Amino acid sequence: MTLDMGFDALKNAYANTELTPEQVMADIRQRANSYSDYNIWLHLLSKAEQAPWLDALAQKDPATHPLWGIPFAIKDNIDLAGIPTTAGCEAFAYTPEASAQVVQQLIDAGAIPVGKTALDQFATGLNGTRSTIGPCHNAFNPGYISGGSSSGSAVALALGLCSFSLGTDTAGSGRVPACFNNLIGLKPSRGLLSASGLVPACRSLDCISIFAFNTDDANQALAAAEGFDPSDDYSSANPFGNQARHYGKRAGPLTIGIIPQSQLQFFGDDDYQQAYAETLEALASEGVNLVEIDYAPFAEAAKLLYEGPWVAERYLATQPLIDDNPEAIFPVVREIIAPGGAPRATDLFTAEYRLNGLKRACQAQIASVDCLLTPTAGRLFTIEEMLDKPIKRNSELGYYTNFMNLADLASIAVPTQFTPAGLPFGITLVGQAFSDRALLSIANHIQALFPLNKGTLPYPTKPSNTAPTANPNTIDVLVCG
Amino acid sequence: MTLDMGFDALKNAYANTELTPEQVMADIRQRANSYSDYNIWLHLLSKAEQAPWLDALAQKDPATHPLWGIPFAIKDNIDLAGIPTTAGCEAFAYTPEASAQVVQQLIDAGAIPVGKTALDQFATGLNGTRSTIGPCHNAFNPGYISGGSSSGSAVALALGLCSFSLGTDTAGSGRVPACFNNLIGLKPSRGLLSASGLVPACRSLDCISIFAFNTDDANQALAAAEGFDPSDDYSSANPFGNQARHYGKRAGPLTIGIIPQSQLQFFGDDDYQQAYAETLEALASEGVNLVEIDYAPFAEAAKLLYEGPWVAERYLATQPLIDDNPEAIFPVVREIIAPGGAPRATDLFTAEYRLNGLKRACQAQIASVDCLLTPTAGRLFTIEEMLDKPIKRNSELGYYTNFMNLADLASIAVPTQFTPAGLPFGITLVGQAFSDRALLSIANHIQALFPLNKGTLPYPTKPSNTAPTANPNTIDVLVCG
Repeated sequence: MTLDMGFDALKNAYANTELTPEQVMADIRQRANSYSDYNIWLHLLSKAEQAPWLDALAQKDPATHPLWGIPFAIKDNIDLAGIPTTAGCEAFAYTPEASAQVVQQLIDAGAIPVGKTALDQFATGLNGTRSTIGPCHNAFNPGYISGGSSSGSAVALALGLCSFSLGTDTAGSGRVPACFNNLIGLKPSRGLLSASGLVPACRSLDCISIFAFNTDDANQALAAAEGFDPSDDYSSANPFGNQARHYGKRAGPLTIGIIPQSQLQFFGDDDYQQAYAETLEALASEGVNLVEIDYAPFAEAAKLLYEGPWVAERYLATQPLIDDNPEAIFPVVREIIAPGGAPRATDLFTAEYRLNGLKRACQAQIASVDCLLTPTAGRLFTIEEMLDKPIKRNSELGYYTNFMNLADLASIAVPTQFTPAGLPFGITLVGQAFSDRALLSIANHIQALFPLNKGTLPYPTKPSNTAPTANPNTIDVLVCG
Repeated sequence: MTLDMGFDALKNAYANTELTPEQVMADIRQRANSYSDYNIWLHLLSKAEQAPWLDALAQKDPATHPLWGIPFAIKDNIDLAGIPTTAGCEAFAYTPEASAQVVQQLIDAGAIPVGKTALDQFATGLNGTRSTIGPCHNAFNPGYISGGSSSGSAVALALGLCSFSLGTDTAGSGRVPACFNNLIGLKPSRGLLSASGLVPACRSLDCISIFAFNTDDANQALAAAEGFDPSDDYSSANPFGNQARHYGKRAGPLTIGIIPQSQLQFFGDDDYQQAYAETLEALASEGVNLVEIDYAPFAEAAKLLYEGPWVAERYLATQPLIDDNPEAIFPVVREIIAPGGAPRATDLFTAEYRLNGLKRACQAQIASVDCLLTPTAGRLFTIEEMLDKPIKRNSELGYYTNFMNLADLASIAVPTQFTPAGLPFGITLVGQAFSDRALLSIANHIQALFPLNKGTLPYPTKPSNTAPTANPNTIDVLVCG
C-alpha cells in the first residue's frame, strides 16, 4: 500500500523509526516506474544523485529542520544544481551550478529533491499537453488533461511521488493543475518567493508556486521557501502581518465575494457547473456570507495577459532560440510566442495604463470582502478535446486565473469535491498582495468543511492546525510600569 | 515697493486689514505688465475672470481656509475650469469644464488663481526656451534661461507675481527652474498629488509640483493640494508617517549622502562648481555628516528616461497631433517626441527589468542616509548657449534630475547661495517615496542655514516653523488604567 506522504505522517514515521528517508525515496522511485505512462518526469533523480542530500540529513536535527526528509518535486524551469534545466525544450537546456534560492532553502531545511517534472514548454500553457515527451495525464483519469503548465509537479504529488512540489504560476500554472488533481495550489504574492534560478515566462509576473495536500503542509513549505533575495530585482520583503505565525485556524464570521451568475463561464462542463453550485451551497449552509462582486475588471485584466503585449516578455525569455532555431520550439508554443516581437512600446504603455485602472478596480472589490472565491477552472477537458483546439481551450482554462499576477494578487486553489465522473473540482481564493497567510487560514477552514483525501491516496487531508491565527492588523505592545 | 508675497506676510496683512485680496490681485496684474518681456504668462486672468473666486472668499472663514486670499499661478498643462489648457501648443488647446483636482482643492482652501503660465511645450524640456511665445527669461538675469519645463510658474513666483505656483515634474521640470530662480521646488512622491486634469508628458511618471519661497509655504500648499483621487489610476493614499504634522523643525544629527567628486558634472560652469563646494563646506561646518554614496545607478536610471523607451509615453500623449499635424509642434519638441512610436514592447520590458534593478540599487543607497543631496543642476546656461545645442544641453540639465520619478523617489530643490555673477544656485534633497515631510523638514533646516530672500523680493525667506517634527516611525499609543 502506498505510504501516507503528508508531512505529519512522514515526520511521525521518521520519529518513530518506522521509516527512513532512504526507504521513502526508494519506494518513490519504484512507484514512479509504474506511472511512466503519465509523462511526469523529465529527470527522475537516481539514488546516487540523491545521496548527498540524504547523507547530509545525518548532520541535521529534525527539530530545527522542519522539512527533514520530506521529498519534493521541482518543475523543470527551476534550477537544481548539477541537473539540467530544460524548461521542456532540449535545445534550451543548460546545467546550473547553483540551485534556485527557493530550492536551496528547502534543501537547507531538510527537504529532498525527487526529480525535475514535465511542463508546458517554457511554462506557456495551462493544460499539460505542450510537452515533447507527450501529454501529462490527469492523476484521476488518464483520458483527461493534467492541467499545466506545472503538470508533472501536480501529478507527481497527486500520485504520492513526493510530499509537496514546486510549480510556477504566471497565468494560472500553479492553480489549474491543482484543481484537476485534487491538490492545494498556492500562488504566493509576487516577490514573496525569490525568482533567482527560474527560467522566466513573463519575468515581471512570474511566481514560483507550491502544491501540497493541505494548507498545513503548504504553510510549512512556504515558510522554508520564502525570503527576500537581494539578487532578484523582483523580490520583496514579507510584511509583518503575513508571517508564518499568521496562518492558523480562522475565527469569526467570513464574508466571501463571488462572481454573479451572468459572469460565470463553464464552457459546457455541466459537472463543473454543478460542483461549483454545490460548493457554494455547502459554504452558505456553514454560515459563510457570500456576496456578489463585479467580475468585469478581473475578466478584462485576464484578457490582457495573452491578448496584450505581455507576450513580448515570453519572446524575450526565449531569445535567441525563437529567432535562430524556432523549429526547436513546440509548434503551438512557438505560435503563441513568435508574435511577441511585434508590439510597440506605445502598445505596452497603453495596456499598462489600462491595467493600472483595472488593478485598482479589482483591489477595491477585494477590499470589501475577506477574500474573493472563483471556480479554479471552468472546465476539465479530455486530452483529445484539448488537442483539438489548443489555443482557444487554453484561453478558456485561464478565464479565472489569468488576471492574478497582472493585478498583483495572492491566491490559493482549494479542492472541494468530485464530480459524478470521479474528477476533482476546486475553487480559488483570491486576496490582496501579501495576504498569503490570511488566505491560507481561510483555505484551512474551507478544507475542513470539505473532507477529501490527499491527491489519489487513501488518506484524509484534513488540516491539523488548530492554533488561532495572530491578527495581522494589530501589533504587540508591551506596557511596563 | 513690491509687497511681501510670503504666506505669513499676506495673512498678517489680511488679518490686520492692511490689504484685501482684491488689492493684492490688482497689484499683481499691474506688476505683471512690467514683466511682459519675460514671456511668463499664456493667460493672465482678468479682474472679471478672478471675480468669482474673490467673491467666494466672503463666505470662507480664514481660520478654516488655510490659503485664504493666497494667489497662485498654474502651469498651462494643468486644468483651470473655463480657461484654455494649451500645454504650450495652440493646436492642442481645449477648454476644460472642471479644474484639476489639485487646483480645485487649492481654490477650496481659499487660494486664488492668477493665471496660466508658459512652459516648454508638452512639458518636454528642462530649459524654458521651447515656448511659442519666446523663451522665458531668468528672473535674475534675462540673458539666462529660466529653466523648464515649468518656466513661467517659477519666474512668476520669483518676481512676486504670486505666493506659490504649480508646476509639473517628470524629468526635473519642478526642480531645475526652482534652482535657477532662487525658489523651493517640491517634487512630491508619485501619486501624492492627483494627476486628474493634467496633460500627460509620461503618464506613468508625471507629478504635479509646487514652487514656494520657503518650506513652510510649500508644506501648507502641499497639505491643501494632496489627497487620494479615485479617478486617477496613479493616485496613492498618503501613509501615516508623511502627514503635514510630520513637517517641522528637525532635531538630532543629520547624515546626508553626497556624490563622489569623480561622478559630479558641472559642464564647464565653474561658478556652480564653486557654489556647490561652498554649500557642502557650510553644511559640514554646521555639523552635518556628509558621506559619499555611489551615483552610478542614479546616473544610469537618468539616462533611461530620454534615451530609453519612455519617450513612447510622450508620443502617446501627443497623439493624434503628432501623426496628423506634426508641424503644429515646436520643432525641437517634435524632434524629441516623433521617434517615440518606434520602440518595441520588448525594448520597454528590457528597460523595465533594468530599471527595477537600478531602482533597488538607488533605494538601498538612500536607505543608508537621512537623504541624498545633489546639485539641482550642473550649469546655468545663457539663452544663447541653450538655443545653440538644445538637445545636448537639455540632457546636461537633467543629469541630477532625470532619475527621480523612474526610481520612484521624492525630492525638493533648495536654494543655498548666489554665484559671484548674482545668479542663484541650489541643491536637491532626495528621499524614498512618501518621505516628503521628512525631506521638507531637512530642507527647512538647510534653508535656515542659508538665509536668502524670497525669489527676487527684498524679504528674507527664513522658514518660521519651529515646532519639532513628529517621529514618523512611532505611532501614538494611549494607555488607560
